[in-house]
Amino acid sequence: MSPDDLAARIAASFARQEFMATLGAELVSVAPGEVVIALPCRAALAQQQGSMHAGAVTSIADSACGYAALTTMPPDADVVSVEFKVNLLAPARGDRLVATGRVVRAGRTLTVCTGEVRAGATVVAIMQATMMRVKQG
Amino acid sequence: MSPDDLAARIAASFARQEFMATLGAELVSVAPGEVVIALPCRAALAQQQGSMHAGAVTSIADSACGYAALTTMPPDADVVSVEFKVNLLAPARGDRLVATGRVVRAGRTLTVCTGEVRAGATVVAIMQATMMRVKQG
Amino acid sequence: MSPDDLAARIAASFARQEFMATLGAELVSVAPGEVVIALPCRAALAQQQGSMHAGAVTSIADSACGYAALTTMPPDADVVSVEFKVNLLAPARGDRLVATGRVVRAGRTLTVCTGEVRAGATVVAIMQATMMRVKQG
Amino acid sequence: MSPDDLAARIAASFARQEFMATLGAELVSVAPGEVVIALPCRAALAQQQGSMHAGAVTSIADSACGYAALTTMPPDADVVSVEFKVNLLAPARGDRLVATGRVVRAGRTLTVCTGEVRAGATVVAIMQATMMRVKQG
Repeated sequence: MSPDDLAARIAASFARQEFMATLGAELVSVAPGEVVIALPCRAALAQQQGSMHAGAVTSIADSACGYAALTTMPPDADVVSVEFKVNLLAPARGDRLVATGRVVRAGRTLTVCTGEVRAGATVVAIMQATMMRVKQG
Repeated sequence: MSPDDLAARIAASFARQEFMATLGAELVSVAPGEVVIALPCRAALAQQQGSMHAGAVTSIADSACGYAALTTMPPDADVVSVEFKVNLLAPARGDRLVATGRVVRAGRTLTVCTGEVRAGATVVAIMQATMMRVKQG
Repeated sequence: MSPDDLAARIAASFARQEFMATLGAELVSVAPGEVVIALPCRAALAQQQGSMHAGAVTSIADSACGYAALTTMPPDADVVSVEFKVNLLAPARGDRLVATGRVVRAGRTLTVCTGEVRAGATVVAIMQATMMRVKQG
Repeated sequence: MSPDDLAARIAASFARQEFMATLGAELVSVAPGEVVIALPCRAALAQQQGSMHAGAVTSIADSACGYAALTTMPPDADVVSVEFKVNLLAPARGDRLVATGRVVRAGRTLTVCTGEVRAGATVVAIMQATMMRVKQG
């Protein structure tokens, strides 16, 4: 698949993830094995102390990892999250969060990814995730 | 603290988590060491296949675990998520999701919780989480 | 498969896990979806403070979860660990550790388990694990 | 602390982890924020298929992460594992396993590390771990 086709395929799926629009997340870049998603910080995403909620942080890391995995799969495949683990390293504050998902090992069925979410230069969360290839619904 | 005071304290903090309102989540019940949060399913929370996004599922599990931990802490404490791990067991579909967070071990600094998210009778996700006591901001 | 056949199948595989013998671990019980393994505490398994090393604790929890998963699979299947997450709740000290692995959801390819390790009445660790069905080697 | 003092401090603690000797693990290198441990593969560490048991793999990753964390702490501190998560990427086979633990964020109480275990050029496992500073016993 050409790079353009790959990016178009991921963008089309991202557009169907209505939750990304609800959060206000944007697909920043797509490369084989690596996807970047940004999320402008705003009060509607906050937890009780005013930082972005760990669930919002996790959501963009999960989508970044899932789409990074999808870039390694054939065009007729889709991806679901099997599991992930997140460590929250610092309060998620600033202008926007940027989540990068990267494939560590792509298997036939399971693909393992790591994710990182930054607020400016600060890493606010890291993720380790397992994604599964499924048939398109 | 009386049960009413405990419930009022958690409800006040939940109301400050604007992300819960953005999701449409509701605080269902508060007991010492156990908190339940519900989330009506709707398209705005969906991933590309129409199930509720793993990030939305995780968000209510995280808040349920965090508030379960907070019920074991003194009134002047607040809680932040240190880390969590989620296994997604089934597509998160149905009328609504119900997340239950339970304290497994309450320590002075760290509290370990487990969470479970159900869609009707189906467990769609389980969580294992570490919460940290912090001073109120 | 009869309960005896199931127990014999798990016991035969456990006997091939030479690491269990190296640790001194014993298979305590096998039931559909639940396996128990015990490990007498001894200095040879200790970390620097004299508690049993988190890796030893994890090892028996992993085997208990893996074999719990295997009880749900056909006789010609084998199991490998995909991933697990452990929270260490208390120092692993005492006469012996007892790990219980339980199946939460058995799928065709992936089976999710939870594990718990006790030292007497104290829960010293909890695990959330994903096991995968593979063909026997 | 001089590099020699740091290495000597970690080596002394490693020598007290009797489980490392039971496994046959060796401390390879110590640098601020990064510790490497090697483990020769042998049948006594195997699971039922002949690969090194996930628990053995995890044990050296845990110690590598714990000691990486300890390098960032004052000389009178000790470290315990709070939690970790491991993804097993490939069968752990070969001459020896090499685990590298690295500090991602060092906090006053909690330090987050990532670990990687290789068999030759193959990454067989990755870890994400939380370590806690405690007083020396």
